[in-house]
Amino acid sequence: MPDAPTIDDLRDAVRIVREIAHRTPVITCRAIDDLVGASVHLKCENLQRVGAFKIRGAFNAMSRLGDEQRRQGVIAYSSGNHAQAVALSARTLDIPAVIVMPSDAPRVKIQATRGYLEATRGEVVLYDRATQSREQVAREIATARGLTLIPPYDHPDIIAGQGTVALELFEETGPLDWLMVPCGGGGLLSGCAIAANAVSPACKVVGVEPDAADDAARTFRTGALQSVRNPDTIADGARTPSLGAHTMPIVCALAHDVITVSDREIVAAMRTLMERAKLVVEPTGALGLAGAIGLARQGRPGIAGSRIGVVLSGGNLELERLGEYLALEV
Amino acid sequence: MPDAPTIDDLRDAVRIVREIAHRTPVITCRAIDDLVGASVHLKCENLQRVGAFKIRGAFNAMSRLGDEQRRQGVIAYSSGNHAQAVALSARTLDIPAVIVMPSDAPRVKIQATRGYLEATRGEVVLYDRATQSREQVAREIATARGLTLIPPYDHPDIIAGQGTVALELFEETGPLDWLMVPCGGGGLLSGCAIAANAVSPACKVVGVEPDAADDAARTFRTGALQSVRNPDTIADGARTPSLGAHTMPIVCALAHDVITVSDREIVAAMRTLMERAKLVVEPTGALGLAGAIGLARQGRPGIAGSRIGVVLSGGNLELERLGEYLALEV
Repeated sequence: MPDAPTIDDLRDAVRIVREIAHRTPVITCRAIDDLVGASVHLKCENLQRVGAFKIRGAFNAMSRLGDEQRRQGVIAYSSGNHAQAVALSARTLDIPAVIVMPSDAPRVKIQATRGYLEATRGEVVLYDRATQSREQVAREIATARGLTLIPPYDHPDIIAGQGTVALELFEETGPLDWLMVPCGGGGLLSGCAIAANAVSPACKVVGVEPDAADDAARTFRTGALQSVRNPDTIADGARTPSLGAHTMPIVCALAHDVITVSDREIVAAMRTLMERAKLVVEPTGALGLAGAIGLARQGRPGIAGSRIGVVLSGGNLELERLGEYLALEV
Repeated sequence: MPDAPTIDDLRDAVRIVREIAHRTPVITCRAIDDLVGASVHLKCENLQRVGAFKIRGAFNAMSRLGDEQRRQGVIAYSSGNHAQAVALSARTLDIPAVIVMPSDAPRVKIQATRGYLEATRGEVVLYDRATQSREQVAREIATARGLTLIPPYDHPDIIAGQGTVALELFEETGPLDWLMVPCGGGGLLSGCAIAANAVSPACKVVGVEPDAADDAARTFRTGALQSVRNPDTIADGARTPSLGAHTMPIVCALAHDVITVSDREIVAAMRTLMERAKLVVEPTGALGLAGAIGLARQGRPGIAGSRIGVVLSGGNLELERLGEYLALEV
């Protein structure tokens, strides 16, 4: 892992993201402890600014750009939390930004992103998901205007930023036995694995994916990069096709396991968080708790009575879809 | 107000409820500040044990019972949060308890209450809402078995316990300009008004009721006890018929105002809390924020730019009903 971030890079990132990110609370809940049969520590990135951990990586990466790159501006493509993270970082750092979003993205997300960009000569560019490739749209604009691409996960500065989630968690809880982390492109998982390896080396870091998007689980098992295409899952943040060139070697080297859960299990975890912990999480954000409950049900050795960290990665739930989600449980 | 609790009674209650209740967090949220045009401090009793502030008053009152009363046991009637509060307090204090609940109460609430009572010779007695009066059922059992009734709001020890919510809030925030408090029977409102009067005397304490259950607003305006019967509102914790003999004089003397909001405004506040603060609150729990938004919209003098405390009184939302609630907004 030649250019993997080190624990020192993560510690630098802590100082940088402090300028923009909340130090989110770590919450415990008796009902969840009883359910898992362990002591569960919820790291609440659903309470983070823009509603997800993504602000950490985006801001860390953009803070490290040179003067010329900052002046030219940045570009990102995302229909989700990364879009708002780059937009808010751009406003805070006074960097012009173009965000490429699908024209059918939720109107509230497009509006929120536009809102952040208003102050900084930024713009949202919409593309048609049916006829255009977002990578190509972004590449053309980037080349024409000399913009720097801020990738959603596959970059050492993004990984280092996301790893600050676990550094903050361990600072609050001390060493843990397990750390359950949602996995899409693997940025959060790699960063958290680097943090755990350095400050709680006996902690088993487990990535959690939806059943339908099990590319990282297969990659971890086989050691060769596996992918999925348009997986059918409610966890939209984990619909990424595969791990990246930077995240794959870190995940394979430092994760203890990558497991999968069904959409039903994700909904059950969301329900538990809403009903018992009174916390709103989006489907992707509930993967970690769904994984912990799954390991407990399967009787995975070392879970009962252990101390488990769970990253609740985001809270941007579309309330209108909650009824549809809850219907999956029955 | 001859037997109204004093600030010293509230301070004693702080020491007592510390044994059982969480010191709940005070959360701020930029989007909510922007919406109200003020600095809003959310006191999160939705994150309290049993999911609501009710544990404070019930535990304070039950802790003050004499040895003989404790041995004989207690009785309470409630379909909501007071039932679970008395049941958990009974378990903690090892007091036998009978909880009278309607047979059509949500099964999950009946089960949770039974769960708390298992350890302590307690029981849930179900009655038929159509043919029986819960007061009469409770009175008959109380007389037959020599049980002490733990009322939901109209008792000095209950009022003192609920007032610890505001004492904790002021301890964290310092003096505030406004304090918005949900109002049903007025236990929480009276307790909070006593606290504010002592430690932040310039703070205007405002009770908030649903439009359909405006008895306390009319009582406050007229100075004579007004009541409602079976009001039609989603805020079930505020469906109480009237203020009580103890709460009415305190509310009339110490509250700055009692206002009402529509069910639509309650739903809008719940949505804001879920979407922006990522917090689950029940309809009654959102009354305070709905009231603050209402005062801001009406341009009530002194709101813009002020520091406002809002009590989120409970989080026991029935997720299955959320779709129906959200439909009220359109």
